[in-house]
Amino acid sequence: MSDRSSKRACDLLVEAPWLLPVAPQNVALPDHAVAILNGRIAAVGPASELRADYAPQEHVRVDDGILTPGLVNAHCHAAMTLLRGAGEDLPLQAWLQDRIWPLEAALVDEDFVRIGTTLAAAEMLTSGTTTFTDMYFFPEIVAEVACRTGMRVQLAFPIFNGANVWASGVDECFHKGLALHDDYRGDSHVLVAFGPHAPYTVDQKSLEKILMLSQEINLGVHIHLHENAAEVAEARAQHGQTWVERLADIGLLNPQLQATHMTQLTRQEIDLVAANGVHIVHCPHSNLKLASGICPTTELAAAGCNIALGTDGASSNNTLNLLQEARTASLLAKVQAGRADAGNAHDVLAMATLGGARALGREDELGSIEVGKRADLVAFTPTGFAAQPLLDVIGSLIHGAPTHQARHVWVEGHALVRDGSLTTIDTQKLHRDVEQQAQRVRGAL
Amino acid sequence: MSDRSSKRACDLLVEAPWLLPVAPQNVALPDHAVAILNGRIAAVGPASELRADYAPQEHVRVDDGILTPGLVNAHCHAAMTLLRGAGEDLPLQAWLQDRIWPLEAALVDEDFVRIGTTLAAAEMLTSGTTTFTDMYFFPEIVAEVACRTGMRVQLAFPIFNGANVWASGVDECFHKGLALHDDYRGDSHVLVAFGPHAPYTVDQKSLEKILMLSQEINLGVHIHLHENAAEVAEARAQHGQTWVERLADIGLLNPQLQATHMTQLTRQEIDLVAANGVHIVHCPHSNLKLASGICPTTELAAAGCNIALGTDGASSNNTLNLLQEARTASLLAKVQAGRADAGNAHDVLAMATLGGARALGREDELGSIEVGKRADLVAFTPTGFAAQPLLDVIGSLIHGAPTHQARHVWVEGHALVRDGSLTTIDTQKLHRDVEQQAQRVRGAL
Repeated sequence: MSDRSSKRACDLLVEAPWLLPVAPQNVALPDHAVAILNGRIAAVGPASELRADYAPQEHVRVDDGILTPGLVNAHCHAAMTLLRGAGEDLPLQAWLQDRIWPLEAALVDEDFVRIGTTLAAAEMLTSGTTTFTDMYFFPEIVAEVACRTGMRVQLAFPIFNGANVWASGVDECFHKGLALHDDYRGDSHVLVAFGPHAPYTVDQKSLEKILMLSQEINLGVHIHLHENAAEVAEARAQHGQTWVERLADIGLLNPQLQATHMTQLTRQEIDLVAANGVHIVHCPHSNLKLASGICPTTELAAAGCNIALGTDGASSNNTLNLLQEARTASLLAKVQAGRADAGNAHDVLAMATLGGARALGREDELGSIEVGKRADLVAFTPTGFAAQPLLDVIGSLIHGAPTHQARHVWVEGHALVRDGSLTTIDTQKLHRDVEQQAQRVRGAL
Repeated sequence: MSDRSSKRACDLLVEAPWLLPVAPQNVALPDHAVAILNGRIAAVGPASELRADYAPQEHVRVDDGILTPGLVNAHCHAAMTLLRGAGEDLPLQAWLQDRIWPLEAALVDEDFVRIGTTLAAAEMLTSGTTTFTDMYFFPEIVAEVACRTGMRVQLAFPIFNGANVWASGVDECFHKGLALHDDYRGDSHVLVAFGPHAPYTVDQKSLEKILMLSQEINLGVHIHLHENAAEVAEARAQHGQTWVERLADIGLLNPQLQATHMTQLTRQEIDLVAANGVHIVHCPHSNLKLASGICPTTELAAAGCNIALGTDGASSNNTLNLLQEARTASLLAKVQAGRADAGNAHDVLAMATLGGARALGREDELGSIEVGKRADLVAFTPTGFAAQPLLDVIGSLIHGAPTHQARHVWVEGHALVRDGSLTTIDTQKLHRDVEQQAQRVRGAL
């Protein structure tokens, strides 16, 4: 009944047979639409109503599509895509000390990071990830790639004792990282966090400095923690306490901490991190591939922890597909709990979206399809015989994850993937650049 | 130097940048080719040599391709593709007794099996599987589908106590199954095996009859065994021994037995099945999804067992992609052993090919690219950003499994998939048929 003049303006109206808002939980809304204005979600509702109410600049109807919030990959070393497959099936220490670290020392420079991160961005965008946390050398280059591609990133700038390819030592890590924070202060796409590598590679004085600064300027702290049994045993041997206990003593167990991996936890440690509001980043494929263990997500969630999902780097995965990470998170939760109703499809979809947004402290802006949030959306389409028939929408998305492709991806209302094609990355140039870097890697293997 | 007249004839010459023969083990041969004559592999060698030696009727060069033997899916209930997603995230007993069994009783008939199995064949072929074991009602319909699509199948015809949709009781199961064996005697595509559902659903008299007949007419015996802890606890409570021990007493632990699942095994049971030459069929995704447990493949293999891989039915998986099953088998072996060098990429590729062929007693004909074997081949092509760069061919195929598509598939030298398209299945009719069956399923949910 409404004519165009009486309709509200919006930049984009997206509609699909199914919409999974994530909040409210465990809901699959049929034939729904999202109206987007100035990069924000202006309305969510039945497609017929929004069509009647809005006069959009652009109208996208995704046949067979499932609309979800943009996925948040809460732990990655993006540029390591260039080392994908460079150390298959090696024992952990040989993988790290004899293969990965020497390759990084020989190869990693600004170009390596620029090209590797662009490849990662291409892979993440085309599989539905709109925001990622990165922890790697040359984070200023990663920031440039994020801005150029339109992705959101949390840069957990690396802090180590000793020199590395990016900084001469821990002081320069702080100096460069804080400069980066100054450069991007107030930017909605680039967020900076402290990235102490692990409690065993950063001395106590630096950890205390991170605590002080993170509270003063309100930044997140992203750390590898209790990734495997060997490092926890070493902590006990050296310090008479675990790394979780040590961080508790320092005061770093707090709601700014993003504790990544966490495969080795006692019941007391689970309660301790939960009581202190620590965010958990679960990286299921990496933890399996490196034989590290399985993060006890069901227990952590029951204790009150927020859980996010990460892919880790491509050298220990080998893909950066967060939907597949969610599937594996579901499967592992089931076998770990011994209950087939554990790790249900909605819970892991929430980890892959709102859980990641919470870990980054951005749950007021990202992670669900709700009015007022930033318009980061994905339209997944089920493809191939393995996606038929569609009997359960959320179940199909998670348990049939390999069959779902991100056909359209929007960040802040801008289409970064349109009909399966990247809009902000020159893929032919990327292929050439990757092959050039791959020759360097092959030469160093 | 050779002209056409001096060249040898062959029907098909396939060449690719990489060939993984599986036997010999752990080898990736660059720029190799396979010559095929009368459905058999006539030669394997460097592409330049075979081009010089052979004058093929058809010559296929697969750019970027990785040639492997056709995959063998050693455990499936193919028609259950139509129940994909019909019971997501339910506790095991509710899934089986309140959801799957009532749906099957209400829906399964010849059409359901014909359409569901055709969908499964489409899914399996396009993901590189050329041979599958099926254990489902109306196996005579499954045989028809296999013949029509050109796939190879082992029909483990179902044997249960009590009536089901296919047979009025255990006697009719034997009668119909043995008739099927008579119908396909000597057929190279259809093999028949006994399919006792499980030791807890088939009485001792019938198990003894299966032993006697299987030895008399030399057929395999395919059974669900030690799938989860509850069934083993029940055996101990009812019989004072486990099902493995019970089958040992009957004499069924022998090289004809294909023991599927096997997630719950004592050290003694591992040695017992190994000493008796039992084949193990590992179904990693299904065992995770139903929270059953993890088959101890590394220990079983070390004890001398042959390991094959299966997808199980799509209602507990949800896909029938054997390469992804191999990836998960590798990941689980690593975390289970606590060693990142366990479950290496070649070992799980061998499980997915030669291990399956051995379980079916067909290792002299199938499972590797060797002269004299039947020409069941797959050309996988790495696709998308997640497949770049290619630094390790076998590692890429397994650890990057979701990125690999079966571009061409040959069975007995016939192309069943050509450039990604099925040659023996009318996919438009299949889509219509599947949607019609899906309506029946939705109506019964």
